[in-house]
Formats: sequence, C-alpha cells, structure tokens
Amino acid sequence: MSKTKILIYDTTLRDGTQGEGVSFSAEDKILMAQRIDDFGFDYIEGGWPGSNPRDMEFFRMMTDVQLKHAKVAAFGSTRRANLAVESDPQLKQLIDANTPVITIFGKSWPLHVTDVLKTTLDENLAMIRESVAFLKAQGKEVVYDAEHYFDGYKADPEYALATLQAARDGGAGYLVLCDTNGGTQVSEFSEMVKVAMQKCNDVSIGVHCHNDCGLGVALSLTGAEVGATMIQGTINGYGERVGNANLTSIVPNLYFKMGYDLNCFESLQKLRDFSINVDKLANITPNKKEPFIGESAFAHKGGVHANAAKKIARSYEHMTPEKIGNKQRILMSDMSGSSSVAMKAKELGIDLDEKSDQMRAFLAKIKDLENKGYEFESADASFVVQIYQHFHDLKDDFDVVSYRTISEMVRDTDSNISEAVVKLRVEDQPDIKMTIAESSGPVGALDHAMREAFASHFPALKSVHLVDYKVRITQAGLGTDSIVQVLMKSSDGHNSWWTCGADGSIIEASYQALCDSFRYKLIID
Amino acid sequence: MSKTKILIYDTTLRDGTQGEGVSFSAEDKILMAQRIDDFGFDYIEGGWPGSNPRDMEFFRMMTDVQLKHAKVAAFGSTRRANLAVESDPQLKQLIDANTPVITIFGKSWPLHVTDVLKTTLDENLAMIRESVAFLKAQGKEVVYDAEHYFDGYKADPEYALATLQAARDGGAGYLVLCDTNGGTQVSEFSEMVKVAMQKCNDVSIGVHCHNDCGLGVALSLTGAEVGATMIQGTINGYGERVGNANLTSIVPNLYFKMGYDLNCFESLQKLRDFSINVDKLANITPNKKEPFIGESAFAHKGGVHANAAKKIARSYEHMTPEKIGNKQRILMSDMSGSSSVAMKAKELGIDLDEKSDQMRAFLAKIKDLENKGYEFESADASFVVQIYQHFHDLKDDFDVVSYRTISEMVRDTDSNISEAVVKLRVEDQPDIKMTIAESSGPVGALDHAMREAFASHFPALKSVHLVDYKVRITQAGLGTDSIVQVLMKSSDGHNSWWTCGADGSIIEASYQALCDSFRYKLIID
Repeated sequence: MSKTKILIYDTTLRDGTQGEGVSFSAEDKILMAQRIDDFGFDYIEGGWPGSNPRDMEFFRMMTDVQLKHAKVAAFGSTRRANLAVESDPQLKQLIDANTPVITIFGKSWPLHVTDVLKTTLDENLAMIRESVAFLKAQGKEVVYDAEHYFDGYKADPEYALATLQAARDGGAGYLVLCDTNGGTQVSEFSEMVKVAMQKCNDVSIGVHCHNDCGLGVALSLTGAEVGATMIQGTINGYGERVGNANLTSIVPNLYFKMGYDLNCFESLQKLRDFSINVDKLANITPNKKEPFIGESAFAHKGGVHANAAKKIARSYEHMTPEKIGNKQRILMSDMSGSSSVAMKAKELGIDLDEKSDQMRAFLAKIKDLENKGYEFESADASFVVQIYQHFHDLKDDFDVVSYRTISEMVRDTDSNISEAVVKLRVEDQPDIKMTIAESSGPVGALDHAMREAFASHFPALKSVHLVDYKVRITQAGLGTDSIVQVLMKSSDGHNSWWTCGADGSIIEASYQALCDSFRYKLIID
Repeated sequence: MSKTKILIYDTTLRDGTQGEGVSFSAEDKILMAQRIDDFGFDYIEGGWPGSNPRDMEFFRMMTDVQLKHAKVAAFGSTRRANLAVESDPQLKQLIDANTPVITIFGKSWPLHVTDVLKTTLDENLAMIRESVAFLKAQGKEVVYDAEHYFDGYKADPEYALATLQAARDGGAGYLVLCDTNGGTQVSEFSEMVKVAMQKCNDVSIGVHCHNDCGLGVALSLTGAEVGATMIQGTINGYGERVGNANLTSIVPNLYFKMGYDLNCFESLQKLRDFSINVDKLANITPNKKEPFIGESAFAHKGGVHANAAKKIARSYEHMTPEKIGNKQRILMSDMSGSSSVAMKAKELGIDLDEKSDQMRAFLAKIKDLENKGYEFESADASFVVQIYQHFHDLKDDFDVVSYRTISEMVRDTDSNISEAVVKLRVEDQPDIKMTIAESSGPVGALDHAMREAFASHFPALKSVHLVDYKVRITQAGLGTDSIVQVLMKSSDGHNSWWTCGADGSIIEASYQALCDSFRYKLIID
C-alpha cells in the first residue's frame, strides 16, 4: 500500500509575519519564497495584498520569479456583506496578485458574524459561497480557511458545518479547519475534524493550528491521523502570539515517526540549515531548544547520560540527528565529569586521559571560569583554546601589554568615533609594538588595532572577521558594574566559531573573546 | 461528580538541571524548593544524592526547611546487579538523604538491561522489586520511574509490563511511565498507558514526558485523559536536550481547559510570575513565545487583529490572560496602523487622535527608527518617550554636549578601569557642566557621570539603576562595524522599564538607552 501524501502549506510569509519581532522586506520575502520552494513545500502563502503595500510589492515582484514546485497563494477574506463579488475591492486585489492559488478565510463562529462582521448568518454563508465561486470562475485554485472553526463548532455545530458546505458548494479545492485562537485540545479537535470529514467527504480537508496551549504540533499531527491531507504552519513556528504550528517539528514527525509521504522528503537532511537560514533572514536568534533541529536537541550533559551515550551510541536519542541535519553534542558544564570532557575533546579530535591529575586540575579551572561568567557550552572555540593551553601547554603567540579604547561623541559636529591603542609583543620579539585604529565602536577599533599589529606575523588572521556578537549580564540585578558576558562569533570565510569572555567591563570581556578567536584560528591552522 | 485530582511532580531541580545552560547552587535549590512549595505543587524531586556533592548538600540543608505542602523526593536508581540491597551504596545514599519520598528508576527496555546494565532480564526484575521493597521497608513512599517505558514496550510488551509488575510487587506507590527519549507519538502513547493501567489497576499511574518531538505537553495531557493521576515535568520545560514536559503549559491546560482539580489551583494567577522568577534564578532569558505565560502569549499586531481585539475584547484570545497572571499587549511595529498606536498609547494612559497628520508623521518616525535598529516592541519605555516627545512636544530637561569614555587595561599591574567624561547643560541654565566618573566598564562610567551631573537638579534619578542589559547585532554578517542594538532594563526600586538604543558604537547605543531611561523616569514622576 502506498503511503498517504500530506501537502505542506507554508504561511511563514503571511501568518508568520504577525509574530512579535518578525518582519520581512519584499526582497526578503522573494528570497524566502525561493528557499521554501527549494526545500520542497507545496504551497507558499505570500501575503495579504489588501493589507499593506509591502505584500502588494511582493506579488508584483513574484510574477517574474520561476518556482520549481511550490504554488504561491495570495490570502484574503470573503467579500464584504451586502456587496456584489464583482464590486468588492479586496477580491479584486486578490485576483490582481496574479497567483495560481487564492486562499480566503470566512467566519465559522456566529459570534464573529454578528458582532465583528455585523451581518446575518445567512448573508455570511452567501459571502463564503459566492466569494469562492467568483475566484474559482477566474481560474484560480481556491483554498478556504474556516477561521475559528473549532470555537464556532462548539458554539453551533450545524452552523459551522454549514459554512464548510458553503465553501464546498462554491467550489473550494481545500477546506481548512483553523484553530485560530489556539485553544482547542487534542481529543475534541480529533472528533471535530472527523465530523467535518464525514459531512464534506468529497473535498480535501486541511488543518491550521496555533500553539497557544503548547499543542500546535500535536493538533496538526492529529489532523493528519484522522485524514487531513494539508497541513498549514510556519517555519520555526513564527506567528501571532506564541506562534503557528511549527513545520520544523511537524515535517519530521510526519515523515520519520508516522510514515507519511511528503514532497520535501529528499530535503529533510537540510532541515536544520533551512530553519537557521530562515532565522537569519528574520534576524531572530535560533531557539536552541527547538525539537529536532535546535542546537540542544541532541546535546547531553550529566555523568549518566553522557556515559551512556558513550556506551551505546544514540541510547538517549529518539532518532539519528543526521537525518535532519543535526548532530550529537556533549556539553561542558560544571556537572560534567572527566569522561564528558574527554568525550568532548574527542569530538574535537583530541585524546585525553580521563583519570589524570591534569584532568582534575582542568575540570577545576573550567568550573572556576564558569563561575566567573564564561560560558563554554556556547563557545566551543574558547573551550578548545583552554584544552590546548592546559594539556598541550600552548603559549600565546602574542602578548598584549596594554590597550586603551576611547569613544567620543560630540553633538555639535554630530561626530561619534572610537579609537583603540594596543601595545603588544609578537612571538619572541623583544620590541613592543604599538598600533592604533579607528572604528564606529570600541570593539571594532580594538579588533582593527590588534589585527594591524598581527598583520605581518600571522597573515591567517587577516581573513578573520566578526559575524555576530552578543552581550548579557550573567549576574542579574547588579547594575552596570556587574559581570557582562560576551559571546562572539568569528568567521574566516570557510569556518565559523564562537568564543566568550566575561568581565565587569564590556571592553575587557570583548577583548578576551577576540583573543580567544585569534588563538583558535592559529590553532586550527 | 467531583473532579479528578492530578498530582504535579516537579523535577526542575533534578531532570531540569540536565538542560543546557541550567545550573543551580545548593542555596538556589533551597530557594526554588520553597517557591515550588508556595506555588502548591505536590512533589519536589530535589536531586540525585549519589551523582554530585551539590545534591548531597541540598538534601542536608533541606532537613532544616519546613515546607507547607510539597513532599521532597530523592532520586536514584535500582540496586546494582548481583548485589544485595543492604550492601548497595547508592540505595544507602538515598536513605541518608532523609526525604519522605524516594523515586527510583529502573530499566524497561531489554536492550538497556543487556547492553547498558550488562545483566539478565530476570536479574533486572529482581533489582526493581527488591529495591522498591527495601526502600518501602524503611518507611519511604516509593515512586517508581519506568525509564524508556515506551521504547521498551515497543520492543517487548510483556517484559515492559513485567517490570511494572515487579515495582508494584515491591510496593511502589506510583508507577510512572517515562518517555525518556521523547520519541513517542500521541496515539501510541495513549494506547500503551491504557494497557499499563489495565495490567496494574491496583496502583496509581504517572507519566514523565520529554519534548523531543514537540509533543511533551500533549503526551502529558493525554496521560491524564486516559487515567494517569501524576504528571512529572519541569517549570519552563527545563531539561536535557529540548527539555522535559513544561509544567507552565500543562497546569493551565489541566485546570482551565480539561477541568481537572489541582492542589495549586489558587496560585494560578501567579503562574507567570512564578515562571519568570524561576528563569531569573536560573539566569535564563524568559521565552517570550511560551504558551500561556510568555510575554507574547496575548500580544497582537497587524491591523485586522488589533482592530478586532478592540472591537470584541479577547476576540483573538483563547482565555482571559489575567487568570494566569498574563496580560494583553498591543505591539508596535511597522505593520501597525494608527489604531494600534492609539491603542498602545491608551494602554499607557494616553489618548491620541488616530486620524491626525501628527499621527501619520509619528508612524513614519517610528518606522524609520525601527529600520535603524530600535526595537520598540521590547522597549516600552522608549516608546513612551517617543510619544511624549512627538505629541506633547516634550523637550529634554538636559542637553548632552559631548561625552568621552576611556577604557584601559594594563597587564603588568592587572589594572582595568573605565572613565567617562560628560559635558552637559541642565534645563535652561547657561553653564556647561563637566563631570567625570569611573567604573569597571564604560557603560557604568557613563551612567555614573551623567547621574553625577543630574544629581542636584533631578534627585529622582538617584534611585534609578540598571538591572539588565543586552546587546545584539541587528544587521547580521557585517562585523564589528555593523549596527548594535542595546536593550536596557532600569529600576527605581518600585517600577522597572526597558529602553533601547541602536548605533554602530556600543557606547553610543548604550548612551541612547540610558538617556531614554532617565527621560522615562522624569516623565512618570
């Protein structure tokens, strides 16, 4: 028996952008649409042409873009009450968006019909049926989103079903049951989808869920289990309030755990990269704890589990992380014993003796640094530097004697500049070298001044540049004099790595992270 | 008919600390245990006495602490293979922990018995039965955690059930089915819990779930639905890999959505505070997108929903946020129209005319600042300052002419100090005032120097101090010269507020956030 195929309907570019902190330019949206198409999702909801100029612009630009597989959908609502479909400006904008698919939502909940639309229940049914039929007559594939379906069904089951039937009668290709407020529980959801499938058994059913009760993924999977063949969601669960159902969890569950067929199955090994790239485009920090694709999803700490992971590979993992582009990690922390450190070192290609005195001294040192605010869990490269310094007795190739940064702002001339002076010795040369550099900020100036000093001796460092930078206070409630922790991501164009620093001064903490970044680059070369 | 009561078993202090970035001192753990008890959870798993000295210390300190309701549990494993229970050092440590409850885990999965424990299936059953019986004979309430129960059941249903029966025969008060790797799906989980309940119908059943498939909450609720009366989880979903089942989602679902009784029901209005305080203690940034209690959980943006929320209060909310100590928020963003701004202003106690030219100019200004890296969503106080400056024509009470910060590190003397010089005019006084201050870092020095200048004119600012500080790059991939965004939290002892700044220089961005913080304080006073 062949496997049932589930179609994935991505609404990251429409419902996803309702999320706090999520914002895309029209150009970003084009890039996103291409990535979603590359990955192999089936529908891409691009926006709501009537709601803002950016979405209009997106659909205009999109007419010049060829996609490989995915169909683009424009999103909108049914016609206004008491207006002919031909005269409805919003339906016209939907047609003008020039997409093969149009998705319109209508009201299933009597409360919303009477109190939000301020019209009659019968007129609402006519609005649904006529709007779908009108768009269908324009040659469009029409997806009908039944907004608040589950709340509507609880309030008035017959009316909710009648709205679905109106959309079916209009010629909708898909009836999508939306848990708009995200308040529905798994069993009631399951029952209500089953009833809708029975009553509208000649049309395909989809589901659109939100995560307000922490059940967005469970509801979507339950939908598939009872027969829905389209699942709507967003990448990384972007979306209003706590977000839409997260496709990066739904997709691997459907394919690896439940055995459904997906058009994107060949891309699943790139799932983690896909997720991270979308976060990058949205300028959102990836959630380490995201199921399947998060950085912590296959991370182990604590003696027993790390040991067990060593004893039976994958013993504490529910699947092979590589299938979704993730990997096992063994975490450093003050809970770790020597076996975890040895394992971590091994992961980095270094063999260490677990039982040595040197190891005990090393564990004590790491613990001490973590107490001071270092965070090796997030800064692998600083950990490598620690290992090399401790076990290989690595001495620095450079010796900073002093540095000074000056940042000055003068309101009258609107000038705002930072300079850094660095005094250092390179390798075993006796002379102290002084360099000075400018930048818009003190960390940039320090980075430039140090690299200026190194340029002739360590040409490898020329290619190193900062790509990300984060600061937080590790000891809360202590004000500007408390310990700040800096995490810094550097790249040489091929590899990238994180280092950390911690100090009462943001400059000194940044300096420490910079030094570790340079040390790491010299080690790996 | 009275409602079924579900007991909440909190393992934040044990399984929760296996999470990446989660670490508590013994003192923190004591404080946590008191808070969990205050909130009204039923069991508090404090740690594993055998695994590290910190947990030993916790149990020793805990003997002097009186709890109101919760029972403390020490966690450990069954006895070693081929060793009498009386001679097992780990069981002895468990008893020495001196808790009313002991929770031990045993193996349900033949693979783990033969390959991890390296013993026979029969010996494993004896280990379970005898360990439970031994602890029970010491007067302890024994909770039995069946590790890998669902994987074990899939591999060998009869053996998995036999391990439960062994624990029951030993006298366990609770049999807890653990989805240790978090790979189980909702329907199969439901079936397997039902079978266990039938086979062991004279003992209470609990469930312990993880979120690896994004189903931690759904599985826990399903457990309750099919008859489990104990749910294990962690606050904020701390825990190994992507975390344990999240009690901050489970508890409101059980009570408000499913109608179960809970001993903590009277505390539910404090759920959000409880969650935030635990994050604070763990030094973890609260997840805005957390269901129920996250800052975004009842936040609305985008014209339609914000308008609708205005038309019918709570129209797009699945429950009243105040019931769990949360609240509705209307978000600022470049997607918002004037009605959202007016609504936000109203939330802040300011009435604005939505249709004015002034409003249009304001929206354009906010959009421009957001493009430059400001983030008003996260910095309410900076938004208030913008409103006052724009609509009330508020002029600054101070005028900074220039500032300079110098940060210097000298290795030889191990000195590392920052100083700031500020030149400013206060109110309409003609004289320029210069102040200088030192601190460990440049932001602290700038803060001190500015407040020194203000001290005589604005005594209210004396009480203002920084309590949190965060920096990130808002334009990725551009190195140290890119735009850095600073978010700063200030407090005057009674209220706290967030402000933001954005610039190529971390100093200038911090300065902007500092100025907004002072302005805000002067406005609210």
